[in-house]
Amino acid sequence: MTAEVFNVDYKEALAAAMAVEVFHNFSLVHDDIMDDAPLRRGHQTVHEKWDVNSGILSGDAMLILAYQYFEQYEPAVFMKLAKLFSKTALEVCEGQQWDVDFETRDDVTISEYLKMIEYKTAVLVAAAMKMGAIIAETSVENANLIYEFGLNLGLAFQLQDDYLDAFGDPETFGKQVGGDIIENKKTYLYLKAMAFSNKEQASHLSQVFSTHLEDNTEKIIWVKDVFNNSGASKATQQEIQEYTSKAFITLEKMNIEEDKKVMLRTFGENLMSRNV
Amino acid sequence: MTAEVFNVDYKEALAAAMAVEVFHNFSLVHDDIMDDAPLRRGHQTVHEKWDVNSGILSGDAMLILAYQYFEQYEPAVFMKLAKLFSKTALEVCEGQQWDVDFETRDDVTISEYLKMIEYKTAVLVAAAMKMGAIIAETSVENANLIYEFGLNLGLAFQLQDDYLDAFGDPETFGKQVGGDIIENKKTYLYLKAMAFSNKEQASHLSQVFSTHLEDNTEKIIWVKDVFNNSGASKATQQEIQEYTSKAFITLEKMNIEEDKKVMLRTFGENLMSRNV
Repeated sequence: MTAEVFNVDYKEALAAAMAVEVFHNFSLVHDDIMDDAPLRRGHQTVHEKWDVNSGILSGDAMLILAYQYFEQYEPAVFMKLAKLFSKTALEVCEGQQWDVDFETRDDVTISEYLKMIEYKTAVLVAAAMKMGAIIAETSVENANLIYEFGLNLGLAFQLQDDYLDAFGDPETFGKQVGGDIIENKKTYLYLKAMAFSNKEQASHLSQVFSTHLEDNTEKIIWVKDVFNNSGASKATQQEIQEYTSKAFITLEKMNIEEDKKVMLRTFGENLMSRNV
Repeated sequence: MTAEVFNVDYKEALAAAMAVEVFHNFSLVHDDIMDDAPLRRGHQTVHEKWDVNSGILSGDAMLILAYQYFEQYEPAVFMKLAKLFSKTALEVCEGQQWDVDFETRDDVTISEYLKMIEYKTAVLVAAAMKMGAIIAETSVENANLIYEFGLNLGLAFQLQDDYLDAFGDPETFGKQVGGDIIENKKTYLYLKAMAFSNKEQASHLSQVFSTHLEDNTEKIIWVKDVFNNSGASKATQQEIQEYTSKAFITLEKMNIEEDKKVMLRTFGENLMSRNV
């Protein structure tokens, strides 16, 4: 889509899109081993269906295959794509390591959390969008602006994912609502609630959050109340709005036709119009 | 060294050499997880010192870092290096998968075994040598010939490694002599011994080979006798000699100065002059 925004046939960008897709799936195969996840998209995960060794090795192969998709571009474009891809892939690995580290840390700050979701999620959206710009050989300014657009939209999307995990419509969210609360995940909602609490409230929330129960119904209701009453829900919604606006302001600065801006804005609006 | 062979300062090739080195270490980090190995080069393996997740993730990061080393070359060279690297890296992954598969297979053929060591070991030697040729921008013929040289030398080296594992001098081999026999590894020696045996002998060898003992002294002596008496030792030495000769013949075809051929030949001879 971003190739089209810069007036190049989307078919030119399909190989790069495949690289991003295969890379994303590589990261899921390895993440699922690390999280010991039995299911992905309703199917057995690779290491469950085969074994951990096959999961590690086929993940490695997928990472290499991702690079091979760029080989259909001419050297100058190939190099730009591969450089952006390597930088992004390393960031995704770092983001994943932070995510793992955060599980056992009690002192995660809001800014650390934002950096983690930026690396783990947003940079791949940003890089994917910039690849279209690189293939279309648009200006450096446009390429950097579309990266910023993707980065802010990616951050808004991930924060909304945190929000919907607690407050989404079970019918349409696609994942178990309350899943993060059950797993005691330190999401933006949780970190904000902690930040807005006094010492006593924080200690209570932290204590309830860390309990593992057979039936989590009560825990979910109680934690959601804290999220609402502390002002964390509102703050999260504001933060989502801020990143979305930032993305759309970046769009205005781009040197492209007006209808292309409308295309990207509509894409962003659709992405963010999940059931809040 | 191969950059120098084609009259380019070796310093030009250091970044590519680092890519190969970091890739090799990536493969060791992941292989050690797969083999559940506690030690590597006398130190704790990464997944032992930290944990499996850190081993998987830092291995992934090393694979990406390997690609980044090529970024110091200009686009045309970068692309050639990255393409060769991706092809080689995939082959190494395939070789590792075959090695894993062979552990539980009873019908591994000699030619399958040779393909496995070609992919798992020899292609990386070959590709490393070709990278020097690419950086020196020598002719395609020279680049392909140095690849062939490295491939055959790599095969000879790996077969010699199999041989020395049974018949090497414990003082200088660097690994436990008899290690492959203790671990029931289907090496070239073993496969040749099986091929040279009648049904009864083969069944006996296979049976002794698959026993796990507290003290392996007797097992090692018995198996080595079979390797010698069946003609497997001699056949292995001949095969090593054949691949070494093939490498040196390839060398003769190269369009380089005579003293450069001497350099490469001396390198090959030193590599193959371990204690047989």
